[in-house]
Amino acid sequence: MPGVFITFEGGEGTGKSSHARDLAEVLRKAGRTVVLTREPGGSPSAEEVRALLVTGAVGRWSADAEALLNYAARDSHLRETIRPALARGDLVLCDRFMDSSRAYQGFAGGGDMALIDMLEQSIVGATRPQLTLILDVEPELGLARAKGRAGAAGVEDRFEKKGLAFHRKLREAFLAIAAKEPGRCRVIDSSRPYEAVSEDIKRAVASVVGLA
Amino acid sequence: MPGVFITFEGGEGTGKSSHARDLAEVLRKAGRTVVLTREPGGSPSAEEVRALLVTGAVGRWSADAEALLNYAARDSHLRETIRPALARGDLVLCDRFMDSSRAYQGFAGGGDMALIDMLEQSIVGATRPQLTLILDVEPELGLARAKGRAGAAGVEDRFEKKGLAFHRKLREAFLAIAAKEPGRCRVIDSSRPYEAVSEDIKRAVASVVGLA
Repeated sequence: MPGVFITFEGGEGTGKSSHARDLAEVLRKAGRTVVLTREPGGSPSAEEVRALLVTGAVGRWSADAEALLNYAARDSHLRETIRPALARGDLVLCDRFMDSSRAYQGFAGGGDMALIDMLEQSIVGATRPQLTLILDVEPELGLARAKGRAGAAGVEDRFEKKGLAFHRKLREAFLAIAAKEPGRCRVIDSSRPYEAVSEDIKRAVASVVGLA
Repeated sequence: MPGVFITFEGGEGTGKSSHARDLAEVLRKAGRTVVLTREPGGSPSAEEVRALLVTGAVGRWSADAEALLNYAARDSHLRETIRPALARGDLVLCDRFMDSSRAYQGFAGGGDMALIDMLEQSIVGATRPQLTLILDVEPELGLARAKGRAGAAGVEDRFEKKGLAFHRKLREAFLAIAAKEPGRCRVIDSSRPYEAVSEDIKRAVASVVGLA
């Protein structure tokens, strides 16, 4: 595929969505065609699945059911949005992708890891990101940031309600993924001032897309 | 589990829902506690997934995404409805279950069969039906029956729109499942008069639950 695929990963309140939006702006100003998208969601059908995942009672889905819903949405997102964009040569920035399934449903959620491995192979296949930016903050700080946001944004809080022990495991999971795939993943300390994080992100991306 | 688990399977318009409802009535009159349920659906969260599966454009999900959505719903249905009922000693009658995933998404839909096998093992596990009644009719007749019903019932027609070649493969798939598991499955010719079919169903069920 001629395009470039970059994902943002991390726990709640790590700044993924804001930094992805800002990076899209920087890359567009540099003349790149950017598709900014997110998971769960990113296609009309996948957004309908998102609504089932991020709202409602914490216990409404098991970790396995969450993994299956995420992968059903991901399949639609890949077919309708990501692969067509990469085939056109666009730059795709995605707020969460396959590593969130490993971290949220597998490592922290206690879901069937062999099932998640098989889903990754079967549904993602060769469409793996060239670069994954893992934004890292202490879970206490991230949850406090996410709560501030939820006050404004509303009801997408099902995962934030999972408790501190869950979010500590999440952080561990993302760091373990980064340690296992250092070629693809860059861990960025997102507890620092926003501009410093932003500069690190641009430097990491420049190594993949050649920012002017 | 002290309960009894019986599933109805087959293509569109084979009479599954009507016969399941009538059998529930017969068994209740015989003093049994019956839980009559259906898939996709059967729990509040699973019914929300059903809406995504049975309505909308034929091509909105790939066969793999359909399998994942069905299994996410099935996980909820098993945890919230089927396993609690079987643990209480109830008789569970379910309109469609795991064989529909094999037939619709695997054999007829061309989905990843190894993935469907793994989902069956991981999500259904030991909660397999003791008896599966496969209602069999020519697809032409079944689709004509289903169309008559849709005129009255509304918009749950996404699978009916998949075309005759798909429904011929479906029938083959259900017959192949029955041939492979003759101990669990009974094929019942549902092109005959309703009463004759009903009598065959009662006979098959008597062998499992001991109808008076």
